Amino acid sequence: MLRFALIGAGFIGSVHATNLAANPGIEFRLVYDVDSQRAQTIAAAHGAAVASTLEEVFDASAIDALFIASSTDTHAAHLRRAAAAGIAVLCEKPIDLDLDRAREVAAFAQESGVPVMVDFNRRFDRDYAELKRVVDSGGIGKVELIQLTSRGPSMPPLSYVATSGGQMRDQAVHFFDLARWLSGLDPVEVFAAGSALAEPNIVKYDDVDTSAVTLRLPGGALVQIDSVRRTGYGYDERIEVMGSEGMVEARRHRNGAVSRYSGESVVDDGLHPGWFERVQPTYAAALASFVACVDGGSLEGGTPPAPSLEDGLKAQAIAEAAVLSLRSGRMEPIKY
Amino acid sequence: MLRFALIGAGFIGSVHATNLAANPGIEFRLVYDVDSQRAQTIAAAHGAAVASTLEEVFDASAIDALFIASSTDTHAAHLRRAAAAGIAVLCEKPIDLDLDRAREVAAFAQESGVPVMVDFNRRFDRDYAELKRVVDSGGIGKVELIQLTSRGPSMPPLSYVATSGGQMRDQAVHFFDLARWLSGLDPVEVFAAGSALAEPNIVKYDDVDTSAVTLRLPGGALVQIDSVRRTGYGYDERIEVMGSEGMVEARRHRNGAVSRYSGESVVDDGLHPGWFERVQPTYAAALASFVACVDGGSLEGGTPPAPSLEDGLKAQAIAEAAVLSLRSGRMEPIKY
Amino acid sequence: MLRFALIGAGFIGSVHATNLAANPGIEFRLVYDVDSQRAQTIAAAHGAAVASTLEEVFDASAIDALFIASSTDTHAAHLRRAAAAGIAVLCEKPIDLDLDRAREVAAFAQESGVPVMVDFNRRFDRDYAELKRVVDSGGIGKVELIQLTSRGPSMPPLSYVATSGGQMRDQAVHFFDLARWLSGLDPVEVFAAGSALAEPNIVKYDDVDTSAVTLRLPGGALVQIDSVRRTGYGYDERIEVMGSEGMVEARRHRNGAVSRYSGESVVDDGLHPGWFERVQPTYAAALASFVACVDGGSLEGGTPPAPSLEDGLKAQAIAEAAVLSLRSGRMEPIKY
Amino acid sequence: MLRFALIGAGFIGSVHATNLAANPGIEFRLVYDVDSQRAQTIAAAHGAAVASTLEEVFDASAIDALFIASSTDTHAAHLRRAAAAGIAVLCEKPIDLDLDRAREVAAFAQESGVPVMVDFNRRFDRDYAELKRVVDSGGIGKVELIQLTSRGPSMPPLSYVATSGGQMRDQAVHFFDLARWLSGLDPVEVFAAGSALAEPNIVKYDDVDTSAVTLRLPGGALVQIDSVRRTGYGYDERIEVMGSEGMVEARRHRNGAVSRYSGESVVDDGLHPGWFERVQPTYAAALASFVACVDGGSLEGGTPPAPSLEDGLKAQAIAEAAVLSLRSGRMEPIKY
Repeated sequence: MLRFALIGAGFIGSVHATNLAANPGIEFRLVYDVDSQRAQTIAAAHGAAVASTLEEVFDASAIDALFIASSTDTHAAHLRRAAAAGIAVLCEKPIDLDLDRAREVAAFAQESGVPVMVDFNRRFDRDYAELKRVVDSGGIGKVELIQLTSRGPSMPPLSYVATSGGQMRDQAVHFFDLARWLSGLDPVEVFAAGSALAEPNIVKYDDVDTSAVTLRLPGGALVQIDSVRRTGYGYDERIEVMGSEGMVEARRHRNGAVSRYSGESVVDDGLHPGWFERVQPTYAAALASFVACVDGGSLEGGTPPAPSLEDGLKAQAIAEAAVLSLRSGRMEPIKY
Repeated sequence: MLRFALIGAGFIGSVHATNLAANPGIEFRLVYDVDSQRAQTIAAAHGAAVASTLEEVFDASAIDALFIASSTDTHAAHLRRAAAAGIAVLCEKPIDLDLDRAREVAAFAQESGVPVMVDFNRRFDRDYAELKRVVDSGGIGKVELIQLTSRGPSMPPLSYVATSGGQMRDQAVHFFDLARWLSGLDPVEVFAAGSALAEPNIVKYDDVDTSAVTLRLPGGALVQIDSVRRTGYGYDERIEVMGSEGMVEARRHRNGAVSRYSGESVVDDGLHPGWFERVQPTYAAALASFVACVDGGSLEGGTPPAPSLEDGLKAQAIAEAAVLSLRSGRMEPIKY
Repeated sequence: MLRFALIGAGFIGSVHATNLAANPGIEFRLVYDVDSQRAQTIAAAHGAAVASTLEEVFDASAIDALFIASSTDTHAAHLRRAAAAGIAVLCEKPIDLDLDRAREVAAFAQESGVPVMVDFNRRFDRDYAELKRVVDSGGIGKVELIQLTSRGPSMPPLSYVATSGGQMRDQAVHFFDLARWLSGLDPVEVFAAGSALAEPNIVKYDDVDTSAVTLRLPGGALVQIDSVRRTGYGYDERIEVMGSEGMVEARRHRNGAVSRYSGESVVDDGLHPGWFERVQPTYAAALASFVACVDGGSLEGGTPPAPSLEDGLKAQAIAEAAVLSLRSGRMEPIKY
Repeated sequence: MLRFALIGAGFIGSVHATNLAANPGIEFRLVYDVDSQRAQTIAAAHGAAVASTLEEVFDASAIDALFIASSTDTHAAHLRRAAAAGIAVLCEKPIDLDLDRAREVAAFAQESGVPVMVDFNRRFDRDYAELKRVVDSGGIGKVELIQLTSRGPSMPPLSYVATSGGQMRDQAVHFFDLARWLSGLDPVEVFAAGSALAEPNIVKYDDVDTSAVTLRLPGGALVQIDSVRRTGYGYDERIEVMGSEGMVEARRHRNGAVSRYSGESVVDDGLHPGWFERVQPTYAAALASFVACVDGGSLEGGTPPAPSLEDGLKAQAIAEAAVLSLRSGRMEPIKY
C-alpha cells in the first residue's frame, strides 16, 4: 500500500482524491491546501486527514507518495521538497511555466532518484492507448502524418488565461506530448499561427484562442494540431495517425447513442459538454499506472513512471518554440 | 446486341427505358403502352420507335427480349404471349396477383424454354449482394436470424392500395424473396400481424399498413420483417443476417454525408425521401444481369436468368400464407 | 440516510454492494448470504457487517431497506418477510418464477404498504431514458412500431438454463417491461417463435435460445423483439421506437471509438464482450431512484418506486403468454 | 441548345464527353484530340463528329461552347483562341502552370466578354454545396477554422509528377479554391511544410507528396489543409468548417454501407479506391451549372459562370505562395 498525500483541494484535487480513495493499492492519508476548509471537505469525504502544515506532507516516515495538484506556481517547490525527502511524486503539468526553472528542479529530482510522473493523463485514455498499440505494432506502417484536434466548448475566464501560460503552454502542450508519444519521435521544428477570435481581449495577455500548429518530425513526417478554446458545440477532441500502410483514428466521443429521425434529418446526441466528461477515466488509469510503477511503495525496484519529467520538459520545450513561432511567423527549431 | 421491346410507359417504364438505352448490349427498339402518347414520349427520348400494336412487340424476327412493365393485371397475358413467340422476358413482379394463375402461366413459360427473369431488383443492390457474398462464404457461420426492415416514407393513395394486392403481396414480397435468397432456404411457416395505423380506411381493402412478419426456415432459423407504408422520416430499408459465428448488416442509406454540430446535438443528413432514390442503381444492374444470362441474344447457351419464375412464385406463396396468417393469428404453413 | 441490508453475495450482489457503498443517501449496514464466506468478502470490502441470521436483516429498528439479490427461488419469501416487517424492498426480478405465487406475495406486499421496487434496471439506462423522454414529449407522434434487440454474446451454462425459467421469463422479460414502459401501454396479445440453435440440448429444458416475439398493443401498434443467447460477436442490445411522425433509436454501444483504415476496409472497435459492460451504470441509477422515492428512509411521503411490483407482474404475465405461444404457434391473449 | 465541342479525348475528356451527351441542354457536336483515334472512339460512343482540324472547333457559326480538357500546356492557347472567336469556354484547371501567362490570357478572355468557367468541380459536390449553404445561412456563425483533408490512394507515376506543377499547384489548389469559396474570403498568408515520404524520388522534381498547409484569412480565421498523395487505405477527402456558433462537416464517403460483426471487431466497407469514384457526380453538375449560366447558348444575358477565371487565378496565386513557403519555412504573403 502506497501511503499518499495530496496537495491541492480545488476541482482537480477533488477528482484525484476520489481516485486515491478508490485505488486498492493506495492508503490515502493526507490532504493539504492553503484553504484548510477545502482540504477538510475533501478529507472528510474520503476518510483522509487534513495536514495543517506542509511538514506533515513531506514526512517520509508517514508518506510514500505525493500528488501535486496545487496551483501551477507551486509545483516546482513542492516537487523539489518531495525529492529531497525521498517521496515519490505524481505531478500535474506543467512542472513550472518557466522552462529554465522547470529544467532545474527536474534535474534535482532526477538526481534524487525518487520516481516522478507528470500527469499527462490523456496517454491513459483507452482509445489513445489503442492508437499507440496499433502504431507500435506496425499496423499502419511508418508514421507519416498525425492530426490532432483539441477544442474546448467555452472560453475560460480571463483570470484563468492570465496565469495559464497561454494556449500553447496550457492546452496544446497535452497534444505536443501525445504527438511525441504516438510517433515515438521528438519533433525538430514547429510552426504556429493563432488568432484571438473567441475573446479579443486575450491579446492583452499576448495569447490566442484559435490556433494551427505544424510540427516536423525527424525523417519528415508532419503533425497538424488545431486548438480551439470555444467551439459552440461541445468538447471535441480526436486524433488520427496516418502511416505508409494505413490510418488509425480515435473518433469523437458522444454524449449518448440516441438518434432522432424525423422529416429530412437525423438528430444525434452531441458531444460532451466539457473536457472533464471526455477524459475523466484517464485520471484513475494514470494513477493506477503510477502505483504499478512505484511497485507497491518501495522506491527501489519499480519501473520508472511515464510520462517522465523528461517527457514533461520536452512537451514544454515544444510549446516554447511554438510561442516563438506565433510571433515570428516561421518554422522554429525546437531546443530540448 | 439484344433487340428489346418495352411494354409499359409509366414511371417505372421510363426508368427501364433509360437503362435499356444506356446498356451497351441492348438495342432498344420498341415501346408499347395503352396510352400511345406516353409511349411516344419515352420512345422519343431514347431513339426507340413506338409500337402501335402488340403484334409488333411479339414479332420474334425483330425482337429478342421483352421488358414487361405494364399494369399488374396484364403481366400474365404478355408473358404467355412472349413465351409462345420465343421472346425472352424480364417481368416486373408479380407474375399475377392470383397465385394459381401465376403458376399456370409460369408453367407454360417454363415449358416454352424462353429465358424469363422476375425483376426482384433488390437482389442487385451493391450492399445486399455483399451480404449474400459474406453469408455464402461462411463468414458468419450458419444463418440463425435475419432482420429485414422495409419502411416507405408515405402512404400510397387508396387507388394504389386497391389494386396492389395488399402489403404482403406488394411490399413484403420483395423481402420474402430476399430472405430466401440470402439464406438459401425456403421458409416453411409464416406468422403475420398487421394494423391499419397510417390510413385506417385501408381496412376497406382488407389491408394493413404496418406489419410484423415472422418466418421459420428449415432447421429452425428465424426471420423477422417489419413493413411500414408511412414513416414520417424518409425511406428506411436495411437488413441484417446473424449467423452462428457473427453478423453482417446492410445499414440505412443517407441522403448525404453532412453533419451539423451546434449546441448539444448533431444534425445529420437524413434518409432518402423515397424508395426510388435508394434502389435506383439496382434496376440497371438487374437488366445487365439479364443481358449477361441471355448471352447476347442467343436463346441457347445462356445461363438461366435469376430471380427465376420459380423464385417469383415462391415469394408469392409466402405472401399468400402471410395473408392467411394476418387473419388466423397463427403460424401458417407455406405451400409452394 | 437509508439503512440498507443486502441479501445475496454472488456476482450481482457484489455489484449492488459497490453501489450501496457509494450512494451518499445510504448507510450500507448488513450483508447476508447462505455462504457466509461470500458475505464476509463483500462486507469487508465496503465496511458493512455480516448478518449471521436473517433475523438481523429483518429487524426494522436497524434496517430501513433491503436489497434482495439472492437466488430466484428465495425472492418471494424474503419479500414477504420484509413487507411483514415494514422494510422497503428493492428486489431483483423475477418476484417468483411461478406467476401465481408471485401475484400472491405481491398482493401481500402491496397491502403492507411498504415501498417495493422491482429492479428492471434497463429503464435507468441513459439512452433508454432519452427514448422515453422523446416518446413522452410527442416527438415521434403516436407509437406504431417498436423493435427491441437483445442478444447475449455466449450461451449460458445448462445449469443456469435449468433454473432460469427459460428465455422468455429470464431474458425477454426485460424487454417486455421496456416495451410497456416506452409505449405506456399493456400489450394485449403475444406471438413467439423460437429455436434451439446455439445449444440443441436446451430442448431438454423445454427452452429456446433464439426467438422472435411479436406483441400487439391496444390500438394496433406492434412490437418485435428478437432474443439471442449467443451471438459470436459480442453483446448487442438496441431499441427503436417508430411513431406516426418520426422514429427514435438507441443504437448499439461500442467498446471504444477507434477505427483502423487499411486496404479496402475499416475495422472499428466492436461491441461490449458481455451484458454487464453495457448496463453497468444502470444499477447505480436504479438504486438512486429507489432512494429518492423512499424519501430518505421515511416510509410515508415518498413517491412509489417504479418499476413497481405491478410492473414486475405484468412483464411476467407477458412472458407466460409468450411461453404458451411458443408451443401453440398462435397469437395468445395476455392475462394480467 | 448549346452546341459544344470538346478538346481532349483522354480519360477526363471521356468523362466530360459522357456528360456532354447526357445533358439535355447540350448538342454535343465535335471532339478534337491530337490523337485522332482517341477522338474517334469518344465521338462514336456519343454520336459526335471528329474535328480533323482546330479550325472546325473554333468556328463560332457552328460551335457555341468549348470544353478544354487537353493537356495543361495547351489550355491557355485554346482559351485565347476561343475568346477571340467569341466561343464560351469551360476549362479544366489550371489556366496555365505559369501564373503570369495565366493572368495574361485570362485578361484577354475577360476583355473579350465570352463566358469562361474554370472546372473546379468539387464546388458542385452535393455535400460541399450543403456546407456552403449552411455557412452562408449563418448556421455556424462567423467562420473561424476550416480543416480540409485531401488524400489520394496511391502515388501517381513520376511522369505525371514531372508535368503536374507539384502537389501545391496540382492537388492542393482544389482545396485552396474550396477554402476561398466556403469562407467567402481571400486568404492573406500561407505557410506550407511538405516531405517526400511516399516517393523519395520526387525531390528530383522539387516536389513533395505529404504536406501541411496553413492559411490565414482576413480577420484571423485559420485554415489547415493536409494533402497526401498515397494513403494505403483508399481515397480520403473531407472538410469541416468551424464557426463561432457551431461546426459543419462533410464526412468521408464509403464504398458501401455493409458492416461485418464478428469476434471483437466490426469490419465496415472502406473508402473509395480513387478520387474519381468520389467526385464523379460533380462533373455533370458543374457542366449543368455552366449551361444554366450561359443561358441556352445566348452569350448575352446569362449570368457569369463560376468558378470564374479570377477564381482560377486566385487559387493559383495561393499555390504559388505555398510553393515559396515550402522553401522559405515561413508564412508568405499571397499576391493576387
